Amino acid sequence: MKYSPLQTERYTYKPKLPKILREQIHSVVPVLGSPTEAETDREKLKSLFPHTYGMPVVSFEKGENKKVGKKCNVGVVLSGGQAPGGHNVIAGLYDALKASNPESKLIGFLGGPSGILDDSYKELSSEDIEEYRNTGGFDIINSGRTKIETEEQYARCAEVCRNRSIDALVIIGGDDSNTNAAVLAEYFRNIGEDIAVIGVPKTIDGDLKNKYIEVSFGFDTATKTYAELIGNIQRDANSARKYWHFIKLMGRSASHICLECALQTQPTAALISEEVAEKKQTLSDIVDYLADIVTERSRKGYDFGVVLVPEGLIEFIPEMHDLISEINDLLARKQEEFSRIEQDEQKADWVAGELVGHRKEAFLSLPAEIQQQLLADRDPHGNVQVSRIETEKLLIRMVEQRLKKLKAEGTYSGKFSHQSHFFGYEGRCAFPSNFDADYCYSLGYNAFMLASSGLTGYISSIGNLSAPADQWQPGGIPITMMMNIERRHGEDKPVIKKALVELKGKPFSLFSSNRETWAKENCFIFPGAIQYFGPPSVCDQPTRTLTLEHE
Amino acid sequence: MKYSPLQTERYTYKPKLPKILREQIHSVVPVLGSPTEAETDREKLKSLFPHTYGMPVVSFEKGENKKVGKKCNVGVVLSGGQAPGGHNVIAGLYDALKASNPESKLIGFLGGPSGILDDSYKELSSEDIEEYRNTGGFDIINSGRTKIETEEQYARCAEVCRNRSIDALVIIGGDDSNTNAAVLAEYFRNIGEDIAVIGVPKTIDGDLKNKYIEVSFGFDTATKTYAELIGNIQRDANSARKYWHFIKLMGRSASHICLECALQTQPTAALISEEVAEKKQTLSDIVDYLADIVTERSRKGYDFGVVLVPEGLIEFIPEMHDLISEINDLLARKQEEFSRIEQDEQKADWVAGELVGHRKEAFLSLPAEIQQQLLADRDPHGNVQVSRIETEKLLIRMVEQRLKKLKAEGTYSGKFSHQSHFFGYEGRCAFPSNFDADYCYSLGYNAFMLASSGLTGYISSIGNLSAPADQWQPGGIPITMMMNIERRHGEDKPVIKKALVELKGKPFSLFSSNRETWAKENCFIFPGAIQYFGPPSVCDQPTRTLTLEHE
Repeated sequence: MKYSPLQTERYTYKPKLPKILREQIHSVVPVLGSPTEAETDREKLKSLFPHTYGMPVVSFEKGENKKVGKKCNVGVVLSGGQAPGGHNVIAGLYDALKASNPESKLIGFLGGPSGILDDSYKELSSEDIEEYRNTGGFDIINSGRTKIETEEQYARCAEVCRNRSIDALVIIGGDDSNTNAAVLAEYFRNIGEDIAVIGVPKTIDGDLKNKYIEVSFGFDTATKTYAELIGNIQRDANSARKYWHFIKLMGRSASHICLECALQTQPTAALISEEVAEKKQTLSDIVDYLADIVTERSRKGYDFGVVLVPEGLIEFIPEMHDLISEINDLLARKQEEFSRIEQDEQKADWVAGELVGHRKEAFLSLPAEIQQQLLADRDPHGNVQVSRIETEKLLIRMVEQRLKKLKAEGTYSGKFSHQSHFFGYEGRCAFPSNFDADYCYSLGYNAFMLASSGLTGYISSIGNLSAPADQWQPGGIPITMMMNIERRHGEDKPVIKKALVELKGKPFSLFSSNRETWAKENCFIFPGAIQYFGPPSVCDQPTRTLTLEHE
Repeated sequence: MKYSPLQTERYTYKPKLPKILREQIHSVVPVLGSPTEAETDREKLKSLFPHTYGMPVVSFEKGENKKVGKKCNVGVVLSGGQAPGGHNVIAGLYDALKASNPESKLIGFLGGPSGILDDSYKELSSEDIEEYRNTGGFDIINSGRTKIETEEQYARCAEVCRNRSIDALVIIGGDDSNTNAAVLAEYFRNIGEDIAVIGVPKTIDGDLKNKYIEVSFGFDTATKTYAELIGNIQRDANSARKYWHFIKLMGRSASHICLECALQTQPTAALISEEVAEKKQTLSDIVDYLADIVTERSRKGYDFGVVLVPEGLIEFIPEMHDLISEINDLLARKQEEFSRIEQDEQKADWVAGELVGHRKEAFLSLPAEIQQQLLADRDPHGNVQVSRIETEKLLIRMVEQRLKKLKAEGTYSGKFSHQSHFFGYEGRCAFPSNFDADYCYSLGYNAFMLASSGLTGYISSIGNLSAPADQWQPGGIPITMMMNIERRHGEDKPVIKKALVELKGKPFSLFSSNRETWAKENCFIFPGAIQYFGPPSVCDQPTRTLTLEHE
């Protein structure tokens, strides 16, 4: 067997394009709006992007396009973690490019941005594209995490693109990669190199989003996959009535995944990092909150439930954030001394001895294995690897301790049996949902339309996504327009602002106005597996977040 | 929101029945074959089941059925762990019962077999049934693990059933529950109580299977759900090319789930407990096997892969099996002494000091956290809780150590980054696949046909399952026919033999003849999510195991 039955069938799926992009490719022209501005830091951004700041928003309309038919070479690169639909971005790009001129070529740089620097590439053939249509993963050309952000790297990019006669570069990535795409576009303009750079918004985390980008691709499929599993576990909890399941969900910077999954499944509880930070909750506050729910449910005979925990939670708890910074500092300062300690427990003892005040307290309040996780694997910069911290187990352990105390006090008499789960890799490479298959294909097709019009420093944008695909609005947004200046590693940097969960937004409001009921009663919803065929009510719906934000 | 879009749509799904059961219920009659025999232990079984041993196999044909229309009360109970389709068994039973006589009643005993003993029940209404058609879980009446196996319990069952005017009891459960159903049937006959007992074969583990029962329900949906996740992770591994994923799969007694998932996904490696036991492999042999694969792949630049591990593996490794028995014995003998030790490490030291020879070696070869897992949570009988042992992490840890050695020797220079997963609860309560929805509905409908014919001690059986549903063959198999005598807790007991993976069977042969290629190359298959709508090639296929076993 080579392909699964689903993969075989998905090859026949024809992704839906916005209406205007269904026209003959030579009959679609870009329309330039008025000059744009960033929301903040305008002068600074203008000075950093003299050639590409203030460009107009682009849309498309019918008309004769004389540029699009020119023979050209387009390079494409996948940057960062996998997200469902990446292959369809490339397929859409390929189809537009070949429709415009069959002699044009699509060059895939291999293994992420380092593929450009290493001049490692392959020309994508029709067979390559057919093999990957509507499939998950980034394996067509693979991805990587190298960032192109130094002057030397930009020069090397120019050299490689020149040697390969590349006219446009499409960078599929998250906020950082799109920021770097804008800087590269400016660099090319500045040195007079006529290479367009177009970004495509990718990340399952959903944090590359703003007034102009309604959602990054992959968020739809990943959250639906996690919601399937959460729903199945809820059904199990509701049937067996004896386990508390603590489920950690990928998404380190923002809690969009956790919030969307909560809206889809109505769990017993879900933590939202942004709220924790906003309310300056301590770990102890969170443990109290959960222990209260466990206690109250236990009185009704509900010794079970499902709790969703965002991966990045711990960094949003102010005391833990401080503790982690302090440990990072401490271990950098006293690296040698620390490295001489062999036993894990002795390491923890040593660190406890070095810390003072609240931080010492916070550290000592943690279970031994979490203390050790904070000190064990360190990233290449010597920092705590937050993603390795088993926050779901930390919470279980601490809730357990709290309940023991309540039991001793006579206010709790239930049974707290538990299971923990972490879902991340399970959803990043699923077959893209119809939404992501259509959206990604449109993003790729649209990226070519922008590049072939000689536009650069734009992000491919498809708007009105909560409507059916034929009503979607393709266009281009100048990346500089979405930027602001942030302090990073002691330097002022132009960056696309990460979209955190808005506590005043509709998705969070809907969640927060219902969560008390969900905690008390069993309001579980069971979304089931993503469906690719069948009734549109099941297989063609966008996420709750997208729908609520655009109601 | 109350129901997900998929749940709403699934309510409209009409499960397919075998052809003969599509007839008017009064026009179907049972046909009794010749008397049967068990494969072994015939005399002993005959003496234990004087009233119900040797009964004929039952099939159905067209004819006038005068018994079926009698008003009656049927009790139903769910026993043990959840499996997708349980609700459809109940729906099929209900529909047949109401078709035979609208005044007949279906009584659901609550929370498993203890519901009978506690006389805790509810009459299932049409609304109850509608709410749960084609859904996962056992929440309609919940399940439980109490076993009905003592004389006193049987008498209590008779009392409750008599008080509730119950004419037949349908027990939905695994091998033990069906064994107990047969004993209860014999008991009722023996005391002259006219209550039929019919079993229904349930378990995601797939180990309730024999010449007469092609597969237990739930295996299809659960393995497809796990295979979805494994496929997604394989796509991620193949895209990122930097992680080894070790995935533990539920299934403690047999490795059918692991084998089926391997056939569906073609992973880098999969361990099959039955093979480990047969070949008397040591933990060190297994670690060598995996480390060799990692090393060889690394030479090709493949520092990634996916390894499937059955939950029960550790008990099938002879040295570990012995070690676990010895620890169980030791802690039973010296319970008091052991219980006075507080620290986990001191417990491990104490146990190491008590063990001798190979067992001591085996214990000392384990990483500290696994030693502690062997000693920490103990079940109510004081035994090691094997399901709590993180075998996937144990293997990662030991492969890591082995690779460190190989690196020092200069024969390995790769990078072994790893992730671990455990899938079990994710699949037990999924929406039943079309196969399980149809199969379960047929099992339930058929169970009523058997019971209403006055048959008892039978298991509901649907055969020819690899063909389309209209060609399925409904009938009844005397449970005693599938029994043998086994030594359990020092006593000879009649039990249904658990079906382990046959090393000479087609599914294992296909796996073993391909695994070398799968280990060397990347032959991953990506099954994707279970589909309920769409092309039959995608949404109406039985498992690979079932297909291969009936080719």
